[in-house]
Amino acid sequence: MKKPPPLTFSAKALLPAGFRAAGIIAGLKKTAKPDMALFFSDSPAVVAGTFTTNQVKAATVRLDAERVAKIGMAHGIVVNSGQANACTGKAGMRDAKAMAAHAARTLGVAPELVLVCSTGRIGVPLRMDLILPGIEKLAAALSPSGGENAARGIMTTDLVPKRHTVTFTANGKACRLTGIAKGSGMIQPNMATMLAFLLTDAAVDRRAMQKALKAAVDRSFNRISVDADQSTNDTVLLLANGRAGNAPLKPGHPDWPAFTAALDGLAFRLAMDMVRDGEGAQKLVTVRVQGARSAADAEAAARSVANSFLVKTSWVGTYPNWGRVMDALGYSPAKVDETKVEILYDKLLAVKNGLKAGASIERLSTVVAKKQFTLTIDLHLGRAAATVYSCDCTEDYVRINR
Amino acid sequence: MKKPPPLTFSAKALLPAGFRAAGIIAGLKKTAKPDMALFFSDSPAVVAGTFTTNQVKAATVRLDAERVAKIGMAHGIVVNSGQANACTGKAGMRDAKAMAAHAARTLGVAPELVLVCSTGRIGVPLRMDLILPGIEKLAAALSPSGGENAARGIMTTDLVPKRHTVTFTANGKACRLTGIAKGSGMIQPNMATMLAFLLTDAAVDRRAMQKALKAAVDRSFNRISVDADQSTNDTVLLLANGRAGNAPLKPGHPDWPAFTAALDGLAFRLAMDMVRDGEGAQKLVTVRVQGARSAADAEAAARSVANSFLVKTSWVGTYPNWGRVMDALGYSPAKVDETKVEILYDKLLAVKNGLKAGASIERLSTVVAKKQFTLTIDLHLGRAAATVYSCDCTEDYVRINR
Repeated sequence: MKKPPPLTFSAKALLPAGFRAAGIIAGLKKTAKPDMALFFSDSPAVVAGTFTTNQVKAATVRLDAERVAKIGMAHGIVVNSGQANACTGKAGMRDAKAMAAHAARTLGVAPELVLVCSTGRIGVPLRMDLILPGIEKLAAALSPSGGENAARGIMTTDLVPKRHTVTFTANGKACRLTGIAKGSGMIQPNMATMLAFLLTDAAVDRRAMQKALKAAVDRSFNRISVDADQSTNDTVLLLANGRAGNAPLKPGHPDWPAFTAALDGLAFRLAMDMVRDGEGAQKLVTVRVQGARSAADAEAAARSVANSFLVKTSWVGTYPNWGRVMDALGYSPAKVDETKVEILYDKLLAVKNGLKAGASIERLSTVVAKKQFTLTIDLHLGRAAATVYSCDCTEDYVRINR
Repeated sequence: MKKPPPLTFSAKALLPAGFRAAGIIAGLKKTAKPDMALFFSDSPAVVAGTFTTNQVKAATVRLDAERVAKIGMAHGIVVNSGQANACTGKAGMRDAKAMAAHAARTLGVAPELVLVCSTGRIGVPLRMDLILPGIEKLAAALSPSGGENAARGIMTTDLVPKRHTVTFTANGKACRLTGIAKGSGMIQPNMATMLAFLLTDAAVDRRAMQKALKAAVDRSFNRISVDADQSTNDTVLLLANGRAGNAPLKPGHPDWPAFTAALDGLAFRLAMDMVRDGEGAQKLVTVRVQGARSAADAEAAARSVANSFLVKTSWVGTYPNWGRVMDALGYSPAKVDETKVEILYDKLLAVKNGLKAGASIERLSTVVAKKQFTLTIDLHLGRAAATVYSCDCTEDYVRINR
């Protein structure tokens, strides 16, 4: 199998062939900000999806999960922010279906080919009186250049829109893969909804695409938050409409590696955008644990450190408070022997055998002061490793969420 | 067995007979605040102790745990704040022993009868050059009325000293039980050290006392934080010197219930003081989960809610954000069926069958606005219940810890 050529990503929402999108203000929020978006493929697309593992699921999540699994095709996705349509019971499910049906009617497609996502306050009914006219406004605004507006239409506490476009080749045909996402509450425990919409004009085998999406999500969005701590609404959807005219991509296809590399890279970039835009966050910190006894231990230790509020608040300053890192390792479920622990700030050794070592506080402080750095923790108990991406926790986090 | 008469607690550090204490400034902190304390019994006392479950343990914890288990008697406890003596290796253990030995020499008792506690920054060596003279100063300052100074000597980020005294009768003899504690970082994940020193002039059987202490700690200090998330230094010590002249208390003794009630009440009051003094906290919130399928589920669900930063930040305002409570229940390891969940704010029904119910937002807001309220969550899946005590998370929390 040939090695795929390097991919070029751009931080733009350039839609693939056959896709149109729109973002508008329907009036669902207190302030007049964009609050609805629509993604539409002119022909039906195969669809893959991953959804929150939270036991409390929004009506939209239950509806989409069923449609993705049973139908596996979609024409469009209608999204609203402002109300989450979670903890809304039967009325919530009626509203979710009505949103899809109204969009389908307006767009002239079958109702079950429209998916629905919501994000916002839990436990309040959708403002259907505003959403239904909003859908008509969206349909009228649909445009091949509407990606940017759609990216803004799905934002809640996000400070910046999150979108990337990558191109690759399949059977010699130029293909485009575009991702548009929202999510900024990545300061643990993450309860701020994460939504991501991935669109491609490549033809992709549905089952293979579902597996590839799951793998990409596990390496990106699931690396920035504890799996168990998912919001009621978290959703990632991937639509492939086949307009590029290639033979459907799947394992064995010579261009499968190019597609999965594009998908992985896209999901990773969107995930990193979320960490950087963490509510109030100013730093991106990569926490890598190696030398763990097992993969589960590596994961648990990395998450314990990456999610510790005392560790995250310590990053706001510049003091390399590795004592708090040791503490978080010690109370993690992972097996830790403090006399073997090694900690590096970027390339600087801070702790060896559980004791202060190497670099001076002043040198370590220059690392903590950076906008981006890596904390490498070697437990020296085995060979397993895991990486989690975190951010600092500033006073702004509390201000945003109070 | 007779029902013990009601106990009277006072928020004072009135020492029991035969105990003296002191608190001084040794210069271990940046600002000239009290930073050392000494507790001393004029005769050897039996001792019980509970210690952190963190895999990374301070030298003092390892030393005390060994002495409590092997010797079971103690004459005194010397405490410093400023440096935690954790992640300090063999030098740290040498320092801990040297602290005890110097105190023992100064006080004229056997070195292994002195226990040692430290709290403060992890990974830096103790300032023995200041601690050893500090011990001499403490010994000179020892006084039966020194409890209040000792309570201040162990404070770190605590805003107020924490101490309570209770009296009870054993074999007709008046007995006193006094508790002095520090700990304010109870905003989860708790890595701020919790220390509590409980002193009584009653005679108590050592083994029975260890069990009673463990039970009291489980119902108090362990109710305000995730067990797994303990600091490197958490320690509770209980000394009983028998000066009251009663027959040693143990199960079967007619006054055993009076003693355990005093002990439970004391530990609970100290624990509640810690939550109220949570770094930056302004509210005490009792989170009770009932109707859980199992005790473990009740505990997990209560902790998930009580420890959620998004729930805790929502309490800063007055908006009853029960959607965040539902979300935290949903991602907890406990089995939850959202269509059965019931949530009350004090006596006001907010959620029934997982949906908004009963009280208006305005009425619920009057509860959230209180300095103290109870969130009752009924999962309606079984009969198990658990209670955890939490506090709100304000901007001050970040300010204190950055």
